[in-house]
Amino acid sequence: MTYSIAILGASGYTGAELIRLLAQHPDMTITALGAHAKAGQTIAEVFPHLRHLDLPTLVKIDEIDFSRIDLCFCALPHKTSQAVISGLPDTLKIVDLSADFRLRDPDAYTAWYGNEHTATTLQKEAVYGLTEFYREQIRAARLVAGTGCNAATGQYMLRPLIAAGVIDLDEIILDLKCAVSGAGRSLKENLLHAELSEGYHAYALGGTHRHLGEFDQEFSAFAGRPVQIQFTPHLIPANRGILATGYVKGAADAVHAALTAAYSTEPFIEVLPLGEAPSTRHIRGSNFCHIGVVADRIPGRTLVVGALDNLTKGSSGQALQNANLMLNLEETTGLMAPPLFP
Amino acid sequence: MTYSIAILGASGYTGAELIRLLAQHPDMTITALGAHAKAGQTIAEVFPHLRHLDLPTLVKIDEIDFSRIDLCFCALPHKTSQAVISGLPDTLKIVDLSADFRLRDPDAYTAWYGNEHTATTLQKEAVYGLTEFYREQIRAARLVAGTGCNAATGQYMLRPLIAAGVIDLDEIILDLKCAVSGAGRSLKENLLHAELSEGYHAYALGGTHRHLGEFDQEFSAFAGRPVQIQFTPHLIPANRGILATGYVKGAADAVHAALTAAYSTEPFIEVLPLGEAPSTRHIRGSNFCHIGVVADRIPGRTLVVGALDNLTKGSSGQALQNANLMLNLEETTGLMAPPLFP
Amino acid sequence: MTYSIAILGASGYTGAELIRLLAQHPDMTITALGAHAKAGQTIAEVFPHLRHLDLPTLVKIDEIDFSRIDLCFCALPHKTSQAVISGLPDTLKIVDLSADFRLRDPDAYTAWYGNEHTATTLQKEAVYGLTEFYREQIRAARLVAGTGCNAATGQYMLRPLIAAGVIDLDEIILDLKCAVSGAGRSLKENLLHAELSEGYHAYALGGTHRHLGEFDQEFSAFAGRPVQIQFTPHLIPANRGILATGYVKGAADAVHAALTAAYSTEPFIEVLPLGEAPSTRHIRGSNFCHIGVVADRIPGRTLVVGALDNLTKGSSGQALQNANLMLNLEETTGLMAPPLFP
Amino acid sequence: MTYSIAILGASGYTGAELIRLLAQHPDMTITALGAHAKAGQTIAEVFPHLRHLDLPTLVKIDEIDFSRIDLCFCALPHKTSQAVISGLPDTLKIVDLSADFRLRDPDAYTAWYGNEHTATTLQKEAVYGLTEFYREQIRAARLVAGTGCNAATGQYMLRPLIAAGVIDLDEIILDLKCAVSGAGRSLKENLLHAELSEGYHAYALGGTHRHLGEFDQEFSAFAGRPVQIQFTPHLIPANRGILATGYVKGAADAVHAALTAAYSTEPFIEVLPLGEAPSTRHIRGSNFCHIGVVADRIPGRTLVVGALDNLTKGSSGQALQNANLMLNLEETTGLMAPPLFP
Repeated sequence: MTYSIAILGASGYTGAELIRLLAQHPDMTITALGAHAKAGQTIAEVFPHLRHLDLPTLVKIDEIDFSRIDLCFCALPHKTSQAVISGLPDTLKIVDLSADFRLRDPDAYTAWYGNEHTATTLQKEAVYGLTEFYREQIRAARLVAGTGCNAATGQYMLRPLIAAGVIDLDEIILDLKCAVSGAGRSLKENLLHAELSEGYHAYALGGTHRHLGEFDQEFSAFAGRPVQIQFTPHLIPANRGILATGYVKGAADAVHAALTAAYSTEPFIEVLPLGEAPSTRHIRGSNFCHIGVVADRIPGRTLVVGALDNLTKGSSGQALQNANLMLNLEETTGLMAPPLFP
Repeated sequence: MTYSIAILGASGYTGAELIRLLAQHPDMTITALGAHAKAGQTIAEVFPHLRHLDLPTLVKIDEIDFSRIDLCFCALPHKTSQAVISGLPDTLKIVDLSADFRLRDPDAYTAWYGNEHTATTLQKEAVYGLTEFYREQIRAARLVAGTGCNAATGQYMLRPLIAAGVIDLDEIILDLKCAVSGAGRSLKENLLHAELSEGYHAYALGGTHRHLGEFDQEFSAFAGRPVQIQFTPHLIPANRGILATGYVKGAADAVHAALTAAYSTEPFIEVLPLGEAPSTRHIRGSNFCHIGVVADRIPGRTLVVGALDNLTKGSSGQALQNANLMLNLEETTGLMAPPLFP
Repeated sequence: MTYSIAILGASGYTGAELIRLLAQHPDMTITALGAHAKAGQTIAEVFPHLRHLDLPTLVKIDEIDFSRIDLCFCALPHKTSQAVISGLPDTLKIVDLSADFRLRDPDAYTAWYGNEHTATTLQKEAVYGLTEFYREQIRAARLVAGTGCNAATGQYMLRPLIAAGVIDLDEIILDLKCAVSGAGRSLKENLLHAELSEGYHAYALGGTHRHLGEFDQEFSAFAGRPVQIQFTPHLIPANRGILATGYVKGAADAVHAALTAAYSTEPFIEVLPLGEAPSTRHIRGSNFCHIGVVADRIPGRTLVVGALDNLTKGSSGQALQNANLMLNLEETTGLMAPPLFP
Repeated sequence: MTYSIAILGASGYTGAELIRLLAQHPDMTITALGAHAKAGQTIAEVFPHLRHLDLPTLVKIDEIDFSRIDLCFCALPHKTSQAVISGLPDTLKIVDLSADFRLRDPDAYTAWYGNEHTATTLQKEAVYGLTEFYREQIRAARLVAGTGCNAATGQYMLRPLIAAGVIDLDEIILDLKCAVSGAGRSLKENLLHAELSEGYHAYALGGTHRHLGEFDQEFSAFAGRPVQIQFTPHLIPANRGILATGYVKGAADAVHAALTAAYSTEPFIEVLPLGEAPSTRHIRGSNFCHIGVVADRIPGRTLVVGALDNLTKGSSGQALQNANLMLNLEETTGLMAPPLFP
């Protein structure tokens, strides 16, 4: 049998990436595509690269008959997402790609996002969607909150180190370089090709990026004590990819051993041999995450470098991986395509 | 059952692209990877983006036991290719991606490539690999010659127009813009990022590009009279993609009708509505080819614009499409993945 | 003595380019910077790359005291430009970079731009700013209309050929590739780095690009008969540069001789040796234009390739070259900086 | 009067950048261009972007009559540079852009570069070319050693903080992102556009980059005790620019005050208002360096971000700034051109 799938917010980059992945999925069929401004358009108009696919025309969300839907992906902006999901049937399986259900504490949500949360019951119900660490909860969940793409990258690099107790929790720095699709399809001067292609910069400096809310929540809960990292994202003139360079205090071999052990059976996470570091060119368009460990010349200091595709493993690929679990399908279905290189 | 596949010249871009496509193919398994300088290396060393795959180590070509192989892809440089293929079992099915067997006339080969052809019997046997136009011959062939990537693009745009007699055969101009992976992995100053990324240029001007040999052969044979087009390739600061702008004399609606009719049942070739033109961003990483037709303001003149991915539909995807036919598999198997956007 | 200069529309790319050039000019001082939405901001806020310069704060245009100004550059959008210039003192020297005064015929203006021209007296007065061909008129002019960047490129390539009578006037094709700064600082999805950097396409196909109005006007007036060329612009993933490939019917040596003769004493136009073609990487950020000529393999057909920087020689550099003439300064002052490579 | 200048190693990127800058210098004339493999070629052949300049043909270094030369720039590879300079007249003023004379200690040189130093007397004589900090010594010097481009960036950010005693010397991390021209014109696979443009990565991880030799020497000498920083360079898909993110322990306002005080009269170094951070798009092609300071959310931790153009302020612009001093010219001559944006 084939599951019937709806995608809300189908006209953004994460929506396009979901359609790309689902088009090859043997057990899922896209039945409805919901949009706002672009409702009424065909997929060939919105995304000419998908014109060969036989897909429904985009419609307003309230025109969708959700009784026919087995699982719904929400790729809407935060704030919109909580309002829309509140109005969906409470038995519908949902994978939300927005930020609305990532933080469990309503106050933390307000602190990072500025607005009050208006769906706190759903917020309590939601399971955090970092598949490798919440696998069993996700399998049983009705509502899964996809993680931030930067938050996913940093957690893949650091969670096993916190778990293994091999690093100093008060001295963690994450210097992250994100390709521009991570900023979405929003129209801003500094996202124009003319300005970005020969210009890169740090942004949200000093601990103001919203994904820090996820790091704080997850690392503190996991460590059983408050953990605050330093995190600086940079915008890089490339389309896809996140490369994060982590500076930790701990022994490189212990760090490498902890990562190797944590991911030895994971299908998507590759720990490189000690001393090697990854590149975004080797994960593009795929659900894989590469992690490398290198000892610094200063004893007791170690570099951890992680790379993944922000739109795939950092967002839509992760969402599909979670959906597979929620529908009792093989977790890797539709996600094993190798990266595109060059 | 699964067919056993060898790839010779596995360490170039077309080799990598073949592995990427075959990794998802349900009926083919890569049994041997042949290389020259990189023999002895693992796939993770040569192509870190493929490190998650369980693939054989690269070996010298003469170490491969071809009796175990059902079909062999040759992604070697021209001249090397004819020498190597001459030494392979004469019952082995082969898809050659080099230029060695594209031209049927040994003199034409020497005129365009400079060297004598040393395997003229094989040259006679080879079938030209433009799938949509040689489908039945390819199905029956033992040795198929993959086309040039530029040659494929231009032929998809122009063959149906010659067939339908809707354009002036003496007034065809093809202004083509190719992304840099079309130049292969060769180390040249003008392929360095620092020089290319903010610099583009025409090359092989005035009718000196080798793919003109294919245009001359195919268009003349097809038209039953000599046809020579003007062809200017340009190198563009992008990784993948060919966009070709064709200037023809003929009525736009007749041109559009001829293309629409020719490709109405083709799975990979999309003719856009009259008046629309394609972009390389909509075919990247896929086996699809988009073609658009626009009338010029000068009556009787028409623009035809084609776009495909030089490494996929222009090379390795085409090779797999042909291999599927040669092994009596469904032609589209392993080739329906949508383009990567953005 | 130093001339006092105003720039209106200082916050766009051509405005920034004017400031960059004027900052090094020994005989001009920027006295006023006019803007609309960004009035009130300092130059460091609008253009951080100019923060080291001692420049006036941006003001509304009606706050500028034009009696102190010797020459005014208008880098406003068309339609706005004619309204603003109509309100300026009629003795003020003006170089307009918009499209408003390029076309001498009001009907042609309306046909290409859609709106009625509301300053037809000024339109009559304006001199077309293609310096090398209108030098004496520009020297005497009060109001000079800067050319379109594509229009400049094509005219540099083709005017001498029309003058010399060495090509067929009914068979001219100009296939042009423009970098993205040519589209200005406007916020459109297809100008986003994520969409453009790995995607290029033709636009305004079939003879609908507005710069054709200039080609028609200039070539026809010059030839003494109607001349209509075919012109297809393409948007390329680079920041600066125009590369235009011209297809003409005529002998290559006559074409080359005509260009060489026309530009032998020009300081900014370099005709390459016969058989060589230019690249945008060799003119970036400069006021130079490179032109090459190559014979096609088909007798009687010739390729002409031109390259210039759309923001410099195609726009702001040209404007300064004209301003130098209007102020009786050495024409090349402030414009001889070599291109930036790489 | 005009000084007569020679450039050795004229065919690399730093050589091209020197010629670009000198072409506009009122007091220097290029009299000789020395090269190795490209000797005998004209500048138009080696660098078509400089074809409009009246420059001597490239010659072998031993064909140059150095008695006519007032100052010589050496843009040769390290090791070659010390051999060549040893053979030059010992009264000739020299600015060396290689790594050969940056480290004062022969053992440190061997440790970082692998080979013995064969010109240790010259090594003792050489003055380290970080202009703002060695101005008086450079004015009096005969031989000046240009700094590494990364080393310059980091020192501009950190030296005033060490001097002011406002940061913890044992806890300095410098995460640096360098554009690809920093790797020179060398032909390597990972510098190809096809591989780099959508792929970025860290290299020389763990404290193995040679510019660390400079950091160690300078910071330790300056602090009067051993100082070792952590330094990770990354290769970014852009042509020009270095952006370095420094993580220090110290109060942001004290850090900002120290930088502001140190550079208040410097013509090329701009300290941004506290809380702002620079971008490479705002320094491209110029001799300016922008530095920003932002407080981290964790009390006592501060971010320092620096940006400069690796080929200009990081290399050839710095070299010219030093040459101006050595010839008793105004230090800023020929170096005040604003950045190129976009």
